[in-house]
Amino acid sequence: MSVLLKEILHNPLLWLLVFVPALFVGQALAPDSHTLLFVVSVLAVVLLATLLSHATESVAAKTGDTVGGLLNSTLGNLTELVIAVAALRAGQYTLVKASIAGAIVTNSLFMLGASFLLGGLKYHVQEYNRVGARLQAGLLFLATVALLIPSAVTSIDSASRTTFVQSVSVGLAVLLILAYGLGLVFSLKTHREFFGSEEHGGNEETPWPVGLALTTLAVVTILVALVSEVFVESVQEAATTFGMTPAFVGFIIVALVGAAAEMASAFSGARKNRLDLSVGIALGSASQIALFVAPVLVLLSYVLGPTPMDLQFWPGAVVMIFIATMTAALLTSTGRSAWFVGVLFLMVYLIFAMTLYLLPPRVSP
Amino acid sequence: MSVLLKEILHNPLLWLLVFVPALFVGQALAPDSHTLLFVVSVLAVVLLATLLSHATESVAAKTGDTVGGLLNSTLGNLTELVIAVAALRAGQYTLVKASIAGAIVTNSLFMLGASFLLGGLKYHVQEYNRVGARLQAGLLFLATVALLIPSAVTSIDSASRTTFVQSVSVGLAVLLILAYGLGLVFSLKTHREFFGSEEHGGNEETPWPVGLALTTLAVVTILVALVSEVFVESVQEAATTFGMTPAFVGFIIVALVGAAAEMASAFSGARKNRLDLSVGIALGSASQIALFVAPVLVLLSYVLGPTPMDLQFWPGAVVMIFIATMTAALLTSTGRSAWFVGVLFLMVYLIFAMTLYLLPPRVSP
Amino acid sequence: MSVLLKEILHNPLLWLLVFVPALFVGQALAPDSHTLLFVVSVLAVVLLATLLSHATESVAAKTGDTVGGLLNSTLGNLTELVIAVAALRAGQYTLVKASIAGAIVTNSLFMLGASFLLGGLKYHVQEYNRVGARLQAGLLFLATVALLIPSAVTSIDSASRTTFVQSVSVGLAVLLILAYGLGLVFSLKTHREFFGSEEHGGNEETPWPVGLALTTLAVVTILVALVSEVFVESVQEAATTFGMTPAFVGFIIVALVGAAAEMASAFSGARKNRLDLSVGIALGSASQIALFVAPVLVLLSYVLGPTPMDLQFWPGAVVMIFIATMTAALLTSTGRSAWFVGVLFLMVYLIFAMTLYLLPPRVSP
Repeated sequence: MSVLLKEILHNPLLWLLVFVPALFVGQALAPDSHTLLFVVSVLAVVLLATLLSHATESVAAKTGDTVGGLLNSTLGNLTELVIAVAALRAGQYTLVKASIAGAIVTNSLFMLGASFLLGGLKYHVQEYNRVGARLQAGLLFLATVALLIPSAVTSIDSASRTTFVQSVSVGLAVLLILAYGLGLVFSLKTHREFFGSEEHGGNEETPWPVGLALTTLAVVTILVALVSEVFVESVQEAATTFGMTPAFVGFIIVALVGAAAEMASAFSGARKNRLDLSVGIALGSASQIALFVAPVLVLLSYVLGPTPMDLQFWPGAVVMIFIATMTAALLTSTGRSAWFVGVLFLMVYLIFAMTLYLLPPRVSP
Repeated sequence: MSVLLKEILHNPLLWLLVFVPALFVGQALAPDSHTLLFVVSVLAVVLLATLLSHATESVAAKTGDTVGGLLNSTLGNLTELVIAVAALRAGQYTLVKASIAGAIVTNSLFMLGASFLLGGLKYHVQEYNRVGARLQAGLLFLATVALLIPSAVTSIDSASRTTFVQSVSVGLAVLLILAYGLGLVFSLKTHREFFGSEEHGGNEETPWPVGLALTTLAVVTILVALVSEVFVESVQEAATTFGMTPAFVGFIIVALVGAAAEMASAFSGARKNRLDLSVGIALGSASQIALFVAPVLVLLSYVLGPTPMDLQFWPGAVVMIFIATMTAALLTSTGRSAWFVGVLFLMVYLIFAMTLYLLPPRVSP
Repeated sequence: MSVLLKEILHNPLLWLLVFVPALFVGQALAPDSHTLLFVVSVLAVVLLATLLSHATESVAAKTGDTVGGLLNSTLGNLTELVIAVAALRAGQYTLVKASIAGAIVTNSLFMLGASFLLGGLKYHVQEYNRVGARLQAGLLFLATVALLIPSAVTSIDSASRTTFVQSVSVGLAVLLILAYGLGLVFSLKTHREFFGSEEHGGNEETPWPVGLALTTLAVVTILVALVSEVFVESVQEAATTFGMTPAFVGFIIVALVGAAAEMASAFSGARKNRLDLSVGIALGSASQIALFVAPVLVLLSYVLGPTPMDLQFWPGAVVMIFIATMTAALLTSTGRSAWFVGVLFLMVYLIFAMTLYLLPPRVSP
């Protein structure tokens, strides 16, 4: 514990953690000042992310980048799962689906692109294990096919369609979870020697003890979940005052803040020339949401939701997920990166963000 | 001939070849017991496939995997051509197109994926000649463009559309056959040194004499064609009793049984660490159907059919062929395989199969 | 100047340059004989292209293939820009867009494919720098996403759509120009060592002096622009007499003649085993049109045009650009080429050309 205290005293940024209790006090006293709650909750999330990132790296130092990246993605997505389950209970399926699609696109384009750019501004050329990137891209491709096929095969009409979409969604959910599980067996067990990253020298800071790191991971994850809930409540109202469309808020703002924790780790990995960690977090998080979180939510909706949720997404979202997958597959096939690769990723993301920002409200999902 | 007899006596499975004459007797005596005929014909096809596979391997031992794979695909697709010509005469164009699309998808996803999986369960990592896979994927891509463009360029309406689709189809058929022919010149003649497979040691069984192997190939191919006809007649009725949709029968069941012979060879190649043979058969067969069988059927329809057949497929089929091509192109670009690569192929195939199985009958092609 | 004269005397083809003044005389005397003007203008363009190609190679000999290719593309596209600005002034946005789409497709499929084929007929296997091809394919992919997303995200309806499309188009134009500029910084400045081509021995003819080469480049470019204007005026009328559809003229004929100058250089590079020059010209020209010429025209339309022009293309054109980009990305990823790679490119182009040729006039863009 004293290490954590020392870290907090040592790092002035962490003093700002005071925003976390401040947020809860604020919510209790002034639940209607949405813009204030929005700003404070964003700050709190970003600060907690700094802590989470340091804790993850300490664990990754023991486990290697593959497991470290998986751990980081899983903890990051746990908060998204917690929020989504709350929305599921309330039957807000449009919100749930928008946040799923937004998270996939944000992780595979923005998080990965910004990592490549930040790393590339410091190092001339960076190398990473392309076998890992290829596996994640393959999994994302599979999820894209699952989202694409039901709509491609049927035309829009009829009563029999609803039954069809629901039963297909359950089947797809089971297949995707199965594929994700087998992917873990493959990368962590039977062929794990292909997914190790190269050693990048010992220029690391002293990592925290594993016990402290794990405790921090758990506690901070819970805090992030609590803060995120305040954030989701306030963001819609705040967005309208800032003049943003609901599509932009759902896909971009919520996804960016929801991924803040993973981003801090991915960016820090890139700046330390540990791109395997960045790629593992960014693509690993995207494929985990697509092949695990989304299917689990479909299955949970039969238990928790007012009606079953299906896997039928807004066509615009399916196209964006398809393009994000293609971008990741095309641009990570070499295992080498320079700053302009990051620019290409970010440009695709900016095209999406701008289009959603300008979208007339009536057309949005 | 005595070698064949010895083989039959040696291999108890081959005793079951008695099913072949049994089937013809059964058809003559009880033409209405569809379920029985269906089961017996499936058994007969699978058994004949075992013989065919052994004969092919004996020829391939002399000619190398490239020519062996081509020979196997061609003989396998010959039976499909025979069946399709019968359907063409009867003007059943929907059935013809469904079986073409089903064969492309089944060969490039199921046959290839199962080969990778079966090989991967025995060998940790397998290598194959990626130049060959790349050529076949390029040819498949070309066929996909040919199926895609006419629909992409016109909207659905008008009388002038029928004339347009028919004349475009004839032109596309000629272009595809030309491309296929040039591809053979390229891979078998001008640049054949790039398509040879590595030597995989001499742990083969003694191959049959070439004369016997070629005779067996010819006779068994004819038998498969005869048995297939019984199968196609009985499958529709049998399917309804099993509760399958017509789309599922056309795309999946007919395609799987129709490709049984090639599959036996492809799987056996994979288990013997001769993945070049497997890839050659699976992708070679898919590209041969797309660039040779289908175009030939379009041209033949002007001579044999009641009206001209065009190359305009059901949009769902075009999307599935496009995805199958993308999957093959993305996953074979490395020339290395492990069991999970097979799982990815099979998962895409399962998504297709499940969606078609659940499709409401009215929506199907 | 005497070198130029000697070249003209030395090379009998160049005597035919007399067609250039003949064309202007013809236009003044007989402005209505469209077919004659069409034929003479095509001859004049092709002949000027020969000169342009020689001049470019002389400059490239000093600057290397990357800069040489860029210079060639830019001068080639300058004429296209000049023509397009004239059409823009007249508010002929359909023509402008068709020529943009046609130029992208023609450059990335026909010019590149014919280069690979011509080179491959002379050399068994050719190598080129795949990093450069990859960069251009990445830029083209970005442009495709920009053309695709606005249509994918909105459905066709409503008044608010026009405003949306216009504001999105301006934003996309700025993003694409920015990406193009950063791409130049990347390939010519920060990472230029990756884009150099291998030395291909000194079997070159003596290059012209740089001063002469640059002057020739400038003068011939202007002549091409003047001749092109006569060509565009006469082509529509001539096409109707030859029975061509407007879509075929806009996409194929205009694009082929408009790119004649670059093609001469690209083909000559391929025949001299300098594929880096060919790839640089073909893909570089395509990406320059997509990421620089088209966006600049959108922005210029606010100043010069009667109404703003948007980036919304005919869906058929978007599909063709998408397929052309995919083809280039898939087939250039190895950095090796043989004649059949060229055949594949040309077959995709032929499929497009034939479909457009047969398109019923009412359906065209």
